[in-house]
Amino acid sequence: MTTKTNRVTLTQHRKGTEPTTTLTSVDEVELPEPGAGEVLVRTTWLQLPAVLADLMRPDPGLPMPGFEIGATVGGPAIGTVVASNADDLPVGTAVVHRLGWQDLVVASAAEVFPVHPGLPEPQYALNQGTTAYHGLVDIAEVGPGDVVFVSGAAGGVGSMAGQIAKALGARVIGSAGGPAKCAYLVDELGFDVAIDYRAGDLAEQLRAAAPDGITVFFDTVGGDAFEAAVKAAAHGARFALCGALAGQLDDSEGAHPRLDIMTAIVKELVIRPFSTLHTPEQIIAWNTHYGQWLAEGRIVYPATIVDGGIADAPAVLDGMLAGAYRGNVLIRVQ
Amino acid sequence: MTTKTNRVTLTQHRKGTEPTTTLTSVDEVELPEPGAGEVLVRTTWLQLPAVLADLMRPDPGLPMPGFEIGATVGGPAIGTVVASNADDLPVGTAVVHRLGWQDLVVASAAEVFPVHPGLPEPQYALNQGTTAYHGLVDIAEVGPGDVVFVSGAAGGVGSMAGQIAKALGARVIGSAGGPAKCAYLVDELGFDVAIDYRAGDLAEQLRAAAPDGITVFFDTVGGDAFEAAVKAAAHGARFALCGALAGQLDDSEGAHPRLDIMTAIVKELVIRPFSTLHTPEQIIAWNTHYGQWLAEGRIVYPATIVDGGIADAPAVLDGMLAGAYRGNVLIRVQ
Repeated sequence: MTTKTNRVTLTQHRKGTEPTTTLTSVDEVELPEPGAGEVLVRTTWLQLPAVLADLMRPDPGLPMPGFEIGATVGGPAIGTVVASNADDLPVGTAVVHRLGWQDLVVASAAEVFPVHPGLPEPQYALNQGTTAYHGLVDIAEVGPGDVVFVSGAAGGVGSMAGQIAKALGARVIGSAGGPAKCAYLVDELGFDVAIDYRAGDLAEQLRAAAPDGITVFFDTVGGDAFEAAVKAAAHGARFALCGALAGQLDDSEGAHPRLDIMTAIVKELVIRPFSTLHTPEQIIAWNTHYGQWLAEGRIVYPATIVDGGIADAPAVLDGMLAGAYRGNVLIRVQ
Repeated sequence: MTTKTNRVTLTQHRKGTEPTTTLTSVDEVELPEPGAGEVLVRTTWLQLPAVLADLMRPDPGLPMPGFEIGATVGGPAIGTVVASNADDLPVGTAVVHRLGWQDLVVASAAEVFPVHPGLPEPQYALNQGTTAYHGLVDIAEVGPGDVVFVSGAAGGVGSMAGQIAKALGARVIGSAGGPAKCAYLVDELGFDVAIDYRAGDLAEQLRAAAPDGITVFFDTVGGDAFEAAVKAAAHGARFALCGALAGQLDDSEGAHPRLDIMTAIVKELVIRPFSTLHTPEQIIAWNTHYGQWLAEGRIVYPATIVDGGIADAPAVLDGMLAGAYRGNVLIRVQ
């Protein structure tokens, strides 16, 4: 008996801001039998971080390599072991893998990682908290008394960052697009203030929300958010930069905001872009707190869940890039 | 008998890049007699840092206030006490003051500072080494093994920064405009490599000079120099930013270069703009080394000396902004 799977492959590289649906195809392919030490995994959840669209570029300029033409596209995923030749991974084990958008994958034991047993549901493992925690704790050294501004606060990283900053004792301001996302930040995620960047000048709104200036900027957006943060920063403010979503959207100046050097000098800002390719130590540091804070109700797991199949992933990614969702974007595979 | 002096006053604020000669007038005014605890000082040397042009703007956005209309213009100066009612400042004492472009000034003892006795000549006190030393030692933490890129390397701050970086054990690359200044950097100041930014793409020249990347960027220029440094930086490079001369020259985008956020993230740059309004501790830290390094021949005092009067100062400042001089620009008052 042969086993077949659907998979999404890259048919052409992304040059501008084309929808990823136009760059990919869905193919049915035959899978080999799992060999010694291998498992067959049925994918149950897909995570769709914005970086996937950048990894479709011919030269992404990221810490990890991009997708080649013909390669399977995808990011982090959860699956269930359905056949096993590996002693440590019995049938039924929930695992994380990064083998892309496929219904079924054959993987070596080294390519899959059991979901941490302290999590309430397997999909909780698909979060971007390591980036948020590392940026806030190691890069910006956030603590009580800080006024933290999180851009892209309704996104996968930003929604975790705001909650973590609150847990660290800071006052937290988040920006997002539209009143619904802003209400979500305050009502569901516990932000102190939410700013709708579409509702007026961002720097002016920031100054009103933080009259003495922001002391920390956690940036996932770049562009106008970066320029506004420089204007609204207090003396000595620390900037932790981990993304440039504005550039992913418009592919032009968003990822290259202007730096007002004289203002930055007067304010003696500390600007630290940092990599999201995390070390094991960074991942462990986050997970040490994650399960506990969830159990204590100090943070929630912010996710938008879309029910769909493997073939729907490119369209959901396009929707996420266009701002249609909030929090971490997941497909619950049907 | 009354004492008169020439002084340069601001007649209108600088809005664009007008020559400062058009914004100032030279007036003869009467001086009061020195009172108790005061001295009469004859100015012998003027220092002309680029920041003076910015201080003529209505809202300079600098750590120190700008010049009001009608105020005496000027920066650091050296003078000799010619009449004294202050016990600690006998006639003949060489002093530093900041009372502006005037032949004679009446000053309280608190407004003048005796020149450090370890210096070979009084004008050596008019240097911008504190900014260079603080930026290299405290901000960028330069040491042996570093590859340091200094922009505006033939300027008052840059020429000291390159020499100090060498004294700290680094390999030093400087950029300047034109072959004469570049030869000066290598032949007289001991830079390892000089790059003529007019001779080709700055980033390409930097990459050729530092194939493994620069580890430190000491920036006095902003603009293209900043953007090239991001391109040519090694992973983890430290950026110490203390000026935006490109903005002083063209008043447009030079002081607001674009920050390529994704490249900065991949390289995990540490970008630290810092104030040139120095603390006493910073000044003392520099002067502890300055006289000694001069005496040991490890650094030279880079200055362009222009013979002239008080009334010539605006024209000399305009020439300096246009790149006519190298090193620290001084007027030896006739």
